Amino acid sequence: MTDKSQQFASDNYSGICPEAWTAMEQANHGHQRAYGDDEWTQRAADGFRKLFETDCEVFFAFNGTAANSLALSSLCQSYHSVICSETAHVETDECGAPEFFSNGSKLLIARTESGKLTPESIREIALKRQDIHYPKPRVVTLTQATEVGSVYTPDEVRAISATCKELGLHLHMDGARFSNACAFLGCSPADLTWKAGVDVLCFGGTKNGMAVGEAILFFNHDLAEDFDYRCKQAGQLASKMRFLSAPWVGLLENDAWLKHARHANHCAQLLSSLVKDIPGVELMFPVEANGVFLQLSEPAIAALTARGWRFYTFIGKGGARFMCSWDTEEARVRELAADIREVMSASL
Amino acid sequence: MTDKSQQFASDNYSGICPEAWTAMEQANHGHQRAYGDDEWTQRAADGFRKLFETDCEVFFAFNGTAANSLALSSLCQSYHSVICSETAHVETDECGAPEFFSNGSKLLIARTESGKLTPESIREIALKRQDIHYPKPRVVTLTQATEVGSVYTPDEVRAISATCKELGLHLHMDGARFSNACAFLGCSPADLTWKAGVDVLCFGGTKNGMAVGEAILFFNHDLAEDFDYRCKQAGQLASKMRFLSAPWVGLLENDAWLKHARHANHCAQLLSSLVKDIPGVELMFPVEANGVFLQLSEPAIAALTARGWRFYTFIGKGGARFMCSWDTEEARVRELAADIREVMSASL
Amino acid sequence: MTDKSQQFASDNYSGICPEAWTAMEQANHGHQRAYGDDEWTQRAADGFRKLFETDCEVFFAFNGTAANSLALSSLCQSYHSVICSETAHVETDECGAPEFFSNGSKLLIARTESGKLTPESIREIALKRQDIHYPKPRVVTLTQATEVGSVYTPDEVRAISATCKELGLHLHMDGARFSNACAFLGCSPADLTWKAGVDVLCFGGTKNGMAVGEAILFFNHDLAEDFDYRCKQAGQLASKMRFLSAPWVGLLENDAWLKHARHANHCAQLLSSLVKDIPGVELMFPVEANGVFLQLSEPAIAALTARGWRFYTFIGKGGARFMCSWDTEEARVRELAADIREVMSASL
Amino acid sequence: MTDKSQQFASDNYSGICPEAWTAMEQANHGHQRAYGDDEWTQRAADGFRKLFETDCEVFFAFNGTAANSLALSSLCQSYHSVICSETAHVETDECGAPEFFSNGSKLLIARTESGKLTPESIREIALKRQDIHYPKPRVVTLTQATEVGSVYTPDEVRAISATCKELGLHLHMDGARFSNACAFLGCSPADLTWKAGVDVLCFGGTKNGMAVGEAILFFNHDLAEDFDYRCKQAGQLASKMRFLSAPWVGLLENDAWLKHARHANHCAQLLSSLVKDIPGVELMFPVEANGVFLQLSEPAIAALTARGWRFYTFIGKGGARFMCSWDTEEARVRELAADIREVMSASL
Repeated sequence: MTDKSQQFASDNYSGICPEAWTAMEQANHGHQRAYGDDEWTQRAADGFRKLFETDCEVFFAFNGTAANSLALSSLCQSYHSVICSETAHVETDECGAPEFFSNGSKLLIARTESGKLTPESIREIALKRQDIHYPKPRVVTLTQATEVGSVYTPDEVRAISATCKELGLHLHMDGARFSNACAFLGCSPADLTWKAGVDVLCFGGTKNGMAVGEAILFFNHDLAEDFDYRCKQAGQLASKMRFLSAPWVGLLENDAWLKHARHANHCAQLLSSLVKDIPGVELMFPVEANGVFLQLSEPAIAALTARGWRFYTFIGKGGARFMCSWDTEEARVRELAADIREVMSASL
Repeated sequence: MTDKSQQFASDNYSGICPEAWTAMEQANHGHQRAYGDDEWTQRAADGFRKLFETDCEVFFAFNGTAANSLALSSLCQSYHSVICSETAHVETDECGAPEFFSNGSKLLIARTESGKLTPESIREIALKRQDIHYPKPRVVTLTQATEVGSVYTPDEVRAISATCKELGLHLHMDGARFSNACAFLGCSPADLTWKAGVDVLCFGGTKNGMAVGEAILFFNHDLAEDFDYRCKQAGQLASKMRFLSAPWVGLLENDAWLKHARHANHCAQLLSSLVKDIPGVELMFPVEANGVFLQLSEPAIAALTARGWRFYTFIGKGGARFMCSWDTEEARVRELAADIREVMSASL
Repeated sequence: MTDKSQQFASDNYSGICPEAWTAMEQANHGHQRAYGDDEWTQRAADGFRKLFETDCEVFFAFNGTAANSLALSSLCQSYHSVICSETAHVETDECGAPEFFSNGSKLLIARTESGKLTPESIREIALKRQDIHYPKPRVVTLTQATEVGSVYTPDEVRAISATCKELGLHLHMDGARFSNACAFLGCSPADLTWKAGVDVLCFGGTKNGMAVGEAILFFNHDLAEDFDYRCKQAGQLASKMRFLSAPWVGLLENDAWLKHARHANHCAQLLSSLVKDIPGVELMFPVEANGVFLQLSEPAIAALTARGWRFYTFIGKGGARFMCSWDTEEARVRELAADIREVMSASL
Repeated sequence: MTDKSQQFASDNYSGICPEAWTAMEQANHGHQRAYGDDEWTQRAADGFRKLFETDCEVFFAFNGTAANSLALSSLCQSYHSVICSETAHVETDECGAPEFFSNGSKLLIARTESGKLTPESIREIALKRQDIHYPKPRVVTLTQATEVGSVYTPDEVRAISATCKELGLHLHMDGARFSNACAFLGCSPADLTWKAGVDVLCFGGTKNGMAVGEAILFFNHDLAEDFDYRCKQAGQLASKMRFLSAPWVGLLENDAWLKHARHANHCAQLLSSLVKDIPGVELMFPVEANGVFLQLSEPAIAALTARGWRFYTFIGKGGARFMCSWDTEEARVRELAADIREVMSASL
């Protein structure tokens, strides 16, 4: 029996959502052309174009590490650099994948506010070194929603893209939790991306209820030149592509992607609202997407762990991350909140 | 409605086999640790160790391009070279992936007999250049079964591995259709790999009935050092790994992998037996695995295409490849054979 | 005492010519800004622009391996391919450097006539594969003069560049012996390069009398974007750049580069004229630049070696390459010719 | 006329020292085998083995960027990381070359004291992340002397190498100014390298009076396997190698390398002694090698510049770097010191 306590460890501990599953099942009939030349892939790509209200170029990759790294490597050369935040997944959790795929591009860390880059912090890093002995800044990558659960507003993205244009930088968005950002803001995917100046979006499927797979959307067509070759060479072209694309069809129809994201966000809000008044508990970041970052006492963390709860504690001393997913149950949220209350009062 | 005529185009036009599907369904309950730290991945790895009768190191990658390229790059450095056959998939159909993953290793083409490398052809290429101005041979890669449907016997593999050892070369096996080779030879996976001197095997799952996924087995433990980091950096570590590994559990239990391979091979034998006496039809290669390569007349090829059959014709003028799959129906094989007979007699 | 018999082994066995030496000596006074920001580098770059009658972009690299590989990698991405001849130095003698610098671009071999690519042979290879599973052709590289001593005429280069434009290919010229080609044809460097459609030329200095160093000339400015960063990252930016550029100033002034090339070519013609009537001796390729390729008998080759002559024999059985240099002495050419005559008559 | 004021900008603004020049002149006679198969290269390599009192493997590269990057890439794979200081040249001034040559290795910054790594700071970084999602630490690189003019004692190197061994890390030394370190410490090259546990040293020639060229010394033979191929592929094998190696013969004979380093260090000490009592002037780092880092007032920096002095000011606000070279004149040092005194008193 799977341990239910893992429900807050990570949104990729969850399984496949019903909509994705059903679509895979439907796709699993007879023979289909391989390598994306099938009807499901066509439908998924068209679905994205409809959702984003634009004729963007759509590609599919197996996971976020590859999607982001391939996108970044298409935006710069090995002697260029990529500006990101200190907590950016590409910097902290992809084992040097961006450097590998790009054959050496350097990631440059810019300051953040609530986990978010700003025009000023980007400018500061982009202009710091302008000589040939240091990689030339060429790309900015935002994570939307950020790794600490905050969300860039369309205005913030627009301000950043204006800075990028001024400085000759491309703008990439790591959207592993893009759906959670849309759900929080209530704005359209278009408003949050190409209308705000984003060149390329990696739209996360895995954390949204798929088994495997991310979509890469180029709003700037020139940048997508030969990107299909890039994916193929890098081992990211599925032969039975329909099983990567069909789940997207399931998720995009009837806005299931948004429904799941809303649910996860709602659980995070619920958790936050249930614990924020607990003495000694502090919200480390604004709760906007599906993650809740709490400052707890160390004994409280130990006590929660002893009760069987699983969560990450990598963000500084006493920091605890609780991630909600498309399948998180409200009852479990309430149970967790009650336990936090108990262990905190015990530890004071 | 899916076009049934695609049944002979490629074995990756087929869908997910019942055993793999059922296992995925079973794996899709509750939360599981990500990145391979789950029970299904453990079971799949153990299943391979049992099947191969040895404590090999087991890794999972998304597709064959990546599996082979990662394995090769772990066996050599960028200034080394890899000896392969002219029809090797790594040479002809992976868009330079081995060169990309290894940061520049060169593939050297050796002569083949029935699509198979020999100790002599390997020696010839390995000793051709021994100066610093040419990449140093370091690996031999065999495809088992080969891309033209032939199969290396254990004796042949042993003879090759002896040559490799003598020349300081590692031995890699691209087993995209390894199961078909086992089914044809009736020998154990162990006999065909580590007992015959193979260092690393990429065991194909996709063509055997999975949605996505290949297994990489290191029989030489030293060569597997930090291979998990290599996979992660190269974008080949699945977060929801259970959906890559569970299908393997399904395939390995009750030898479903072998059953499917036997069926595909059987269909190829059936097709071959039904057409080989047709005047003007010639077998281009021995039919051993699941592919049948026929020399037909060009009008016959056009006529078959007009009747709705789909197959590849990339192997020289008048050459046609018919691939059988785990789900190929005998009735369709007979129908195809009958059509070949008709179009050939019409075209004489 | 240096062995004079090495005079025909290779044109890079020779030393530094007086003009290059004197310029280095003049450059060796006081302090100068590093990394190319010095007066000598400015003068050398201006010298090239004057010689080529165009405002090209000029860069300096340490050797031909790097110059060619960097130029090629600026013309394509890792998933692209480079069309070259079977004897191209980038294919046969740079240990996979083009693959390394480009992070995986594949070299595709096209047929040649007298060592030269043709529009037809380029077209044949460029159009052979057009699917995503094979690297996409993006560049053609010519060696001028070729590795077998032949020379492309301006008309031939123009015909090739027309084909390149039609097929969307960039045109690179490996000019390790570009000066020998100019000397043979008696045409201007401009006629042989940008006026004939060449995008990038690597102009060889080492074989022309320098200690170290090649120049990379971009006639297509767009392609040179950030090339200075590329050189720096790849370890090809000299700190004391003046010692790479000053020799060029020496070579370019008073056309010393051309004088040396003419001398080397002249020696090759002399050797050729002295031996071509010898029974059993055959010219393997037309003698146009500074190399003479002779078909000799194997006993004759052994006898020449025994007499102390050094030369390469890598081009097939009985083939011998004699390279002339800027400092080859006519007396030695005559001595060699006499010895060839003797050993051949003895071996018949 | 060269601007004498550049004498303190960088030690690579200086020219070729007499010993190196004379050796190049002697090497420039007749023909010699190419690619290092010549007598001068043999003599230089033997000279290093004698100087270091051990049978090390010796290679030559064109510049420090390449020497360090090639050495590092031989010590780790793309998914490994390299621990260095914040001011390490490989981090700050090689435009991502280590990442490029290694195909993606990440540089991890460890804390320093006086510009020097410590066992503690190395341990802290090496143990910070031990999961597969972050590059695995595999190498430590020290710069000796450091970029801020300080020098590791043999004891300090030994303590660091002990930590490296414990943690499974290789130890690389960037010795762009290794001679200055030896000169300061008065200890043998052996004591400062292999006897203290260094695996690989890049011994700088350029800053020591050569035109171009660095030596790479492997004390650990296993790590040097096929390193010659690595150099060749990366465009670092000189055809006319004698002109890279002969200058080393000149420098190593009669300890010219040490004499030059002592002179440069002496000038730095002189400058330091002449200015350290000036009110408002502060030494930013201990003056041990050939660099003097002074904290000046900003008006003083402007005034010095106005007087024609050239120096770098990249180390924080008001920081000025004065580098002494093998050819720095004492009179100029005194002149500079006097000017510093004047502008500082004027600016108070």
